Amino acid sequence: MTISDAQDRQPKEGVQLALQQVVALLERHKLVEGLVHKQEMPRHDLVETLVHKQHIAELQTKLDTLHVADIAHILEALPLDERLIVWDLVKAEREGEILLEVSEPVREALIASMDSRELVAAAETLDTDELADLAPDLPQDVLQDVFKSLSLEDREQLRAAMSYEDDTVGALMDFDLVTIREDVTLETVLRYLRRLDELPDQTDQIFVVDRRGRLRGALPLKRLLVSDLEAKVATVMQTDILMLRPRERASEAAQAFERYDLITVPVIDERGTLVGRVSVDAVLDYVREAAESERLSLGGLREEEDIFASVWMPPKNRWAWLAINMVTALVASRVISVFEGTIEQLVALAALMPIVAGIGGNSGNQTITMLVRAIALGQVSRVNFKRLLTKELMIGMLNGLVWGGIMGLIAALLYENWSLGLVMTLAMTLNLSVAALFGLMIPMLMHRYGRDPAAGSSVLITALTDSGGFFIFFGLAHLLLM
Amino acid sequence: MTISDAQDRQPKEGVQLALQQVVALLERHKLVEGLVHKQEMPRHDLVETLVHKQHIAELQTKLDTLHVADIAHILEALPLDERLIVWDLVKAEREGEILLEVSEPVREALIASMDSRELVAAAETLDTDELADLAPDLPQDVLQDVFKSLSLEDREQLRAAMSYEDDTVGALMDFDLVTIREDVTLETVLRYLRRLDELPDQTDQIFVVDRRGRLRGALPLKRLLVSDLEAKVATVMQTDILMLRPRERASEAAQAFERYDLITVPVIDERGTLVGRVSVDAVLDYVREAAESERLSLGGLREEEDIFASVWMPPKNRWAWLAINMVTALVASRVISVFEGTIEQLVALAALMPIVAGIGGNSGNQTITMLVRAIALGQVSRVNFKRLLTKELMIGMLNGLVWGGIMGLIAALLYENWSLGLVMTLAMTLNLSVAALFGLMIPMLMHRYGRDPAAGSSVLITALTDSGGFFIFFGLAHLLLM
Repeated sequence: MTISDAQDRQPKEGVQLALQQVVALLERHKLVEGLVHKQEMPRHDLVETLVHKQHIAELQTKLDTLHVADIAHILEALPLDERLIVWDLVKAEREGEILLEVSEPVREALIASMDSRELVAAAETLDTDELADLAPDLPQDVLQDVFKSLSLEDREQLRAAMSYEDDTVGALMDFDLVTIREDVTLETVLRYLRRLDELPDQTDQIFVVDRRGRLRGALPLKRLLVSDLEAKVATVMQTDILMLRPRERASEAAQAFERYDLITVPVIDERGTLVGRVSVDAVLDYVREAAESERLSLGGLREEEDIFASVWMPPKNRWAWLAINMVTALVASRVISVFEGTIEQLVALAALMPIVAGIGGNSGNQTITMLVRAIALGQVSRVNFKRLLTKELMIGMLNGLVWGGIMGLIAALLYENWSLGLVMTLAMTLNLSVAALFGLMIPMLMHRYGRDPAAGSSVLITALTDSGGFFIFFGLAHLLLM
Repeated sequence: MTISDAQDRQPKEGVQLALQQVVALLERHKLVEGLVHKQEMPRHDLVETLVHKQHIAELQTKLDTLHVADIAHILEALPLDERLIVWDLVKAEREGEILLEVSEPVREALIASMDSRELVAAAETLDTDELADLAPDLPQDVLQDVFKSLSLEDREQLRAAMSYEDDTVGALMDFDLVTIREDVTLETVLRYLRRLDELPDQTDQIFVVDRRGRLRGALPLKRLLVSDLEAKVATVMQTDILMLRPRERASEAAQAFERYDLITVPVIDERGTLVGRVSVDAVLDYVREAAESERLSLGGLREEEDIFASVWMPPKNRWAWLAINMVTALVASRVISVFEGTIEQLVALAALMPIVAGIGGNSGNQTITMLVRAIALGQVSRVNFKRLLTKELMIGMLNGLVWGGIMGLIAALLYENWSLGLVMTLAMTLNLSVAALFGLMIPMLMHRYGRDPAAGSSVLITALTDSGGFFIFFGLAHLLLM
């Protein structure tokens, strides 16, 4: 996307166009391959080989002009066989970075297609913090070879980076630090910087450390640029800066970035020594991935799914989720079967029961969604929980009376049975109250016991409002109508 | 969070601690108020008034030390009456920025509590791009007063900023630009910058424009700092930079930021004139909000909900969603009632029917979630749609045969009726195939006709798999068992 290249200005169209071009080149390539097979042309047919080679060369040229993130995107959008053709054409020195960019299932597939030598070469192009991200997917022998090739300092960094759990600041951290002392002038700093070939990406401030490497403050570049050159770093640097610890939770760091509009934040250990930094690009990726994985896990999908995964090896999570769903449905079915006698006497109950259960599940899930968000934002405390509970219970009962009233009326008119209408109204009011109560209790209890309040809440509430709804409805019907 | 203040280092604990302190001060304040009321102490009781004043003063001091984003967070976490007490104590010059930070329902409540003069004062503290975000919530007369107070250039910017729709680059854009010419030396640039009091936040590059304000390139600060001072800007600046247009979609800009790790991107109009910039802090907020609003809208909630909204005025979306749910449940109920005769003959069908419908809805929602993500990532094209369709249909049928087989067996054993088991297996296989088919078709069609593929997909598929599932199940039962 260059100024001179006016056609290529839209970011999305840029990569989408590239994808189309790659697909077109692949199609032509396959067409040639197909001809070779179908018409049983001799493989060494000179013209064919030339055409074939030409397409491959074009494809390779195209790929070389693309950003690694765009190649990653194209690889994810291609079915497995075409993906591997493209992967073979990618320059070896870019393979490491591309492996970092692709989603996990695609990465696994690509790594499986590479031999140890290729993998070591790819891994050696990466920084230690990137290597730590890739390491869990690499075969043990490859990892050992890479480790041996590292300097002592890099080995230490890699070991540290790999020791942090996912979703901690340590996992987001990189080691691209530029540090200065506080007793030098800004002019000296400028001269020092000019001797470096290049500053790390995302550098908005230079960290000020003492002799022992302990963080003393930060000198923002924009302050460096507008301040008096004779001034000492100590007088210009900021000291009231945010700092992170490696074991803090990534989500809290992300909230700080969002709240205070940060670009980089220093990471210190328990002695106050500067060990790394978190930059906003890592946070942006984290926020997107966290949001996506939460949304997907609510639907019972794996964090990232290769849309071209084989039919015979669908993601395990999807199966597990269906299995859980099946068990809860079976339980609900058994609740109904207890009341088969009641249904035989009044078959209209069978037609009305999904309404009672459905509205409960729907309303309970609304409560959970609202509460999970409020918990994530830190808006729920012991102080205001009672108030929330009262509010949701009131809404639940109110909804029950209004909707239950409407549905009761419809049922009464349809079946010309006013008692049936009353049962409908009562059952809906009760089930909506159950939904509100458990919709609050489930995420709160999960949160209190240190679990993710979103995971599984939805299944649980649906199971409760289904089985509970059927039980309430038929129970009331049995008492009031039989 | 300062270096000297070791206790306050954790970002989350920082604001959570502040919230607790504010709540504690409010409690003490209310306790005093409560005493005045309950024991009917005279309002002018000197001691009471003093204690009261002291708590208020403490609270105000606390608030003055907090970042505007933290005050916004605290306001969101407080019930309405306490929220207004805190709001009254916030310094007038910070009100504008806080109004920007809080969620929309809370903002509406705060604005409703302010008079015109206060609102004008608050609005006048904001930049034009921020004012444009706030404008839709301001009363018309306040907006006109603010508009009159602006300079001509600012009025133009405000008009432009307000003309862009939400979810466009224009809505994310700010006007904090530093521009230079390409024919000067880096030394001149440094001297020029030093004459500015301050560079805008998030400045990682300076934009290079020609006489007419057309964008020629960008000079990254990190390049400025390490390059030869005698060099001309033209030789050091980057020309292959990403540029955005005001009417491009915000989501595509966000993808570009994420993919290419950007801090700021220039925005140009159709003549190539630099009109503004998008910076990563706006993108981070956008990504978080977009993810959240999508998740909430799937559950039938409004984008942002004030968890302390009144019971009598619950968010309209929540009602609308329940109403839609009610209608689809009623339709499903009517489908069942058609088969009341069938149920009377074999009441076991009533107990088994929720299983058929439930599994279909669950599986269909999984397909939709996967596809919505793939569409958002641009991984779905006309080329690979057929392949996806085949894959999902195969998975649907496979799941149907496996789970339907298991459930059929259970049903056959429970009810000692092998034909019933066969009906169960067939119905589940068919309904899962329906779920897969429509789970793909619904988001694809919505996407093709320019609508958000996520919104409403879930309701539609559930309606189809419920009514469709009942119809398939009872239809098969009627044909094979009666």
